[in-house]
Amino acid sequence: MAQVGIVMGSDSDMPIMKKAADVLEELGISFDMRIISAHREPQEFFDYANSAEANGFKVIIAGAGMAAHLPGMCAAIFPMPVIGIPMHTTSLGGKDSLYSIVQMPSGIPVATVAINGGANAGLLAAKILATSDSALLDKLKAYSAKQKDAVVAKDQKLQEVGYKNY
Amino acid sequence: MAQVGIVMGSDSDMPIMKKAADVLEELGISFDMRIISAHREPQEFFDYANSAEANGFKVIIAGAGMAAHLPGMCAAIFPMPVIGIPMHTTSLGGKDSLYSIVQMPSGIPVATVAINGGANAGLLAAKILATSDSALLDKLKAYSAKQKDAVVAKDQKLQEVGYKNY
Amino acid sequence: MAQVGIVMGSDSDMPIMKKAADVLEELGISFDMRIISAHREPQEFFDYANSAEANGFKVIIAGAGMAAHLPGMCAAIFPMPVIGIPMHTTSLGGKDSLYSIVQMPSGIPVATVAINGGANAGLLAAKILATSDSALLDKLKAYSAKQKDAVVAKDQKLQEVGYKNY
Amino acid sequence: MAQVGIVMGSDSDMPIMKKAADVLEELGISFDMRIISAHREPQEFFDYANSAEANGFKVIIAGAGMAAHLPGMCAAIFPMPVIGIPMHTTSLGGKDSLYSIVQMPSGIPVATVAINGGANAGLLAAKILATSDSALLDKLKAYSAKQKDAVVAKDQKLQEVGYKNY
Amino acid sequence: MAQVGIVMGSDSDMPIMKKAADVLEELGISFDMRIISAHREPQEFFDYANSAEANGFKVIIAGAGMAAHLPGMCAAIFPMPVIGIPMHTTSLGGKDSLYSIVQMPSGIPVATVAINGGANAGLLAAKILATSDSALLDKLKAYSAKQKDAVVAKDQKLQEVGYKNY
Amino acid sequence: MAQVGIVMGSDSDMPIMKKAADVLEELGISFDMRIISAHREPQEFFDYANSAEANGFKVIIAGAGMAAHLPGMCAAIFPMPVIGIPMHTTSLGGKDSLYSIVQMPSGIPVATVAINGGANAGLLAAKILATSDSALLDKLKAYSAKQKDAVVAKDQKLQEVGYKNY
Amino acid sequence: MAQVGIVMGSDSDMPIMKKAADVLEELGISFDMRIISAHREPQEFFDYANSAEANGFKVIIAGAGMAAHLPGMCAAIFPMPVIGIPMHTTSLGGKDSLYSIVQMPSGIPVATVAINGGANAGLLAAKILATSDSALLDKLKAYSAKQKDAVVAKDQKLQEVGYKNY
Amino acid sequence: MAQVGIVMGSDSDMPIMKKAADVLEELGISFDMRIISAHREPQEFFDYANSAEANGFKVIIAGAGMAAHLPGMCAAIFPMPVIGIPMHTTSLGGKDSLYSIVQMPSGIPVATVAINGGANAGLLAAKILATSDSALLDKLKAYSAKQKDAVVAKDQKLQEVGYKNY
Repeated sequence: MAQVGIVMGSDSDMPIMKKAADVLEELGISFDMRIISAHREPQEFFDYANSAEANGFKVIIAGAGMAAHLPGMCAAIFPMPVIGIPMHTTSLGGKDSLYSIVQMPSGIPVATVAINGGANAGLLAAKILATSDSALLDKLKAYSAKQKDAVVAKDQKLQEVGYKNY
Repeated sequence: MAQVGIVMGSDSDMPIMKKAADVLEELGISFDMRIISAHREPQEFFDYANSAEANGFKVIIAGAGMAAHLPGMCAAIFPMPVIGIPMHTTSLGGKDSLYSIVQMPSGIPVATVAINGGANAGLLAAKILATSDSALLDKLKAYSAKQKDAVVAKDQKLQEVGYKNY
Repeated sequence: MAQVGIVMGSDSDMPIMKKAADVLEELGISFDMRIISAHREPQEFFDYANSAEANGFKVIIAGAGMAAHLPGMCAAIFPMPVIGIPMHTTSLGGKDSLYSIVQMPSGIPVATVAINGGANAGLLAAKILATSDSALLDKLKAYSAKQKDAVVAKDQKLQEVGYKNY
Repeated sequence: MAQVGIVMGSDSDMPIMKKAADVLEELGISFDMRIISAHREPQEFFDYANSAEANGFKVIIAGAGMAAHLPGMCAAIFPMPVIGIPMHTTSLGGKDSLYSIVQMPSGIPVATVAINGGANAGLLAAKILATSDSALLDKLKAYSAKQKDAVVAKDQKLQEVGYKNY
Repeated sequence: MAQVGIVMGSDSDMPIMKKAADVLEELGISFDMRIISAHREPQEFFDYANSAEANGFKVIIAGAGMAAHLPGMCAAIFPMPVIGIPMHTTSLGGKDSLYSIVQMPSGIPVATVAINGGANAGLLAAKILATSDSALLDKLKAYSAKQKDAVVAKDQKLQEVGYKNY
Repeated sequence: MAQVGIVMGSDSDMPIMKKAADVLEELGISFDMRIISAHREPQEFFDYANSAEANGFKVIIAGAGMAAHLPGMCAAIFPMPVIGIPMHTTSLGGKDSLYSIVQMPSGIPVATVAINGGANAGLLAAKILATSDSALLDKLKAYSAKQKDAVVAKDQKLQEVGYKNY
Repeated sequence: MAQVGIVMGSDSDMPIMKKAADVLEELGISFDMRIISAHREPQEFFDYANSAEANGFKVIIAGAGMAAHLPGMCAAIFPMPVIGIPMHTTSLGGKDSLYSIVQMPSGIPVATVAINGGANAGLLAAKILATSDSALLDKLKAYSAKQKDAVVAKDQKLQEVGYKNY
Repeated sequence: MAQVGIVMGSDSDMPIMKKAADVLEELGISFDMRIISAHREPQEFFDYANSAEANGFKVIIAGAGMAAHLPGMCAAIFPMPVIGIPMHTTSLGGKDSLYSIVQMPSGIPVATVAINGGANAGLLAAKILATSDSALLDKLKAYSAKQKDAVVAKDQKLQEVGYKNY
């Protein structure tokens, strides 16, 4: 049974959702990825969300764009955390997706990350699981240390070559 | 059996939804008004939307604020027109509600009216029904004529008293 | 006599308006498509809108961009539903078109769809006509079923090939 | 025959339109003020706009809020300058009115002033007439001098009493 | 040792942060509430964030307004989930707070809730803890059931008294 | 002596300003075009604006982008109409230019046209001059008739070839 | 001779500008406060800006609202730092003022602070002067320490009385 | 010891930060450029900011995008002026960066320049240093004179070749 469910309403969201999956894989977290549209197949969506707990999910990562209902409808049904990824949109830049996901009414939170924030959604799911998994917490700390090292290396290169040659 | 379903997720939307009901009543259109939250009682919502056609509804008017999912989820299930009313919100002025309702993906339209446009939602429902009801169409024309008369009367008053005394 | 009038103010809107026409054609709904500018030929526009009912139109689909007045002026004259399509714009992303169409004053609703939502405008017109045409309603249900099948097929492909090969 | 036509779609716009009238009156410019709705009485509106030139108008000042079509529709018919005043709105602060008025397509300009800029609309009309009326131009220069004097007086008061007692 | 840290940069945020605390208390979750400003006392803030894990926190809830850095800086240091609450602001309605919190760069997610979403922040913290606490999960389900009952009761009242007397 | 002054702060605005010049030329209106920056050469700008009336200008067309001060500063000095063209900008789409031009304080109006509305600025200048020049007014009517004919021709083509071949 | 010039275009900005003056006074920095409108008295404004350096100013603090040109025009003339304070506005919340001040073209920077950020403008002026005045730098450090103490005191009160009694 | 610290959180900001460095170099101002992330290496960032005064910095220029915390956190620690450069962003155009930098709370100002305003940040730093360095002030005046000359040259070219050949 997977620990994290990843769900998107359209395969056009795949390039962003893939980043969440990559982070989970790198951290050794099992996940299940689905394309299910709350709008185009509401009954399938309901079955998915209603069975998510029984399927062992501890977290759902849902991505959606425009009038983005998928994360909020997951949160209406699934009792554990739902992470929402607002997709960038051509006309409104993702502001439509962001507002449709983050502005949830009292009682049904969606943990919203940045527009197109696929990797951060994966990391947030890992951090949630790490609240009860100290081995995973250690992996997360190592992940952060690598991030830091990457910045340090860039700064060292800058000091060596100077900004004109960077 | 009512011709129009009016549904809101919270009774805080009642002052706006009431305006839709008032228009329908004035035009002699039967309606059924419910408070059902897609977020707080998803199963009840699904039952409502799934039985709407069998209950005789030809149009659903759904109002919602913030991350406003109710109209879009109605449109995902009910096969006839769904009219969405975006509610004004304190922080974003209703832009969040508007985007969450109007920016529906291809395949699942919501007929969106202005922020807090309760009366217009009622009128639009009537116009939809009037496509196959010439008596109702006549009532709508009379309704418009009254609107026009009201403006004419204001202009006449202005011509009589002058703008300083208006 | 056509059931639906499609009107745009400029042929630059054609790629979006075409999508509405394609949906109507697929569903077997007769339509009449015109390029008429409320701004550049107001008298022609008035004649068009004033004769629309006599021409048999039950619904008008009007698309416009920037200070988009065409849908609202249609709604001021034509007594049955007017569907407005806000066009994407370079500078404001279509927010100007959207506000100019959706924020209609009380008494003159325009059923607004998403920015560039041509296909949804066609579908909404069909749903309106389906309120009194059960054969059309069946076609719409079949149309939705096809949409659902397309999503299901994508999900099946994902399950088969995995997200890395999708 | 009045030189300037002032027109609004609703008497709720009167407090702002009145400021335009006051400026015109102060500068001795004749004007005609009307309440005519392009949306609620399109035929009356057309008659008004079509006869505006024959009535002697050199400029039309049109105010409107939300999906503000009145100024643009005046500009579609009247061949001389149309000044548009976007009204403040509760939900969108007047951004809807502003975009609906200023974002006119090529060929049909509306001279747009600030949100709720009634006085500036009156002044702009006067400046337009002053291009061929040197006596009016002198009055406008005197008007500006008075504005300047008012600021100078405030600064003098500040220098005298200090900012803490201002 | 408290399970949840609640931190705000200014006591003007207290009315919103209090709602998070109330939810946690109702669900029997221990918490520690502090007023610490990342801007006005950066060293104290660093000490707070650096010792949060040792103090037993599993989740931090951070609220902030305007250029809201507190949640993001917590997330830069604390390895487990940080929930950010964007505060409503007078001039920009909280859009400044929202963007400053949700638009975190890759690698440092903040789980963002709605503007002024204090109660949802508390609930989200509870849902996170419930991923490894089945008793708490049961409490959350009961909490949701109460929410549902409240809506059902309102709908029943509406059916009984009618919308005019509601 | 030219009737219209055209001024821009940077030659990057030339492609838009050129459209205004082209319209004036087509209508036989004399104009003077300058590149003068209120920010980079304030004294030169002041001399330009202060001598504009003596140079015979009846209207100034000023284009500017970002924090666009040129039109407003012209209006502070020149006593006849100033037309402002807000330039499109990469980051804010021209909203910065639009607000900086249209939101003038009471007493100093700028007649603002659409973002990048070069042609409309030229037309508006012509309409202003036409208030006292009936030959120019006739030219403007002919200009509008040509616009109308162009739309009519497009519609005729559509009726002939059908929308699929358009 | 004053070290800092404070200038506003209208005395309606006084409540915000006063906060800048109060900070300067508290830190012992001499200042000169004026009401001068770049729009209503451009010549006076030019004289002010041109003589600012000779008058001994090292920094100018300029506040303005709507199409806020005063800070940018100061920066076009005065060769040392200009700090701009965007005023809150009724319709656009100060977004118009902010964009008109911060979006300056390359070559003419305005050091912009938050909407209504009067106190921060005073502090920023002090920090600028402190780059060459170590006694002032010490005062600024003491000022910051007081800020910190105020937050610490609030936190201590919270720990003592608990959040319910705060 | 360098007079100005330039710091960015990511080397993706280099093209903009480089412009600040180029201006400083042209004006003969010493600077130190670093890549340090407040989010990815908070301890390193703290050390940097805490030692900035001891390292001789009089001004820090900090650039950041999205939820841009780097400038504000510098300002929380460094007692002299911090200049913030909001980076353009794909989804929100840099509005997120701008709000996260400019909307600082009272007590911790950040001198904010335009989105992507690298050169202006460099100039503003120079202007700050010029408050106590008359030789630098002369260089700045010469820099401005060159800017002016460049505009004058463009205008001369326009007068010579005409706008059609420009």
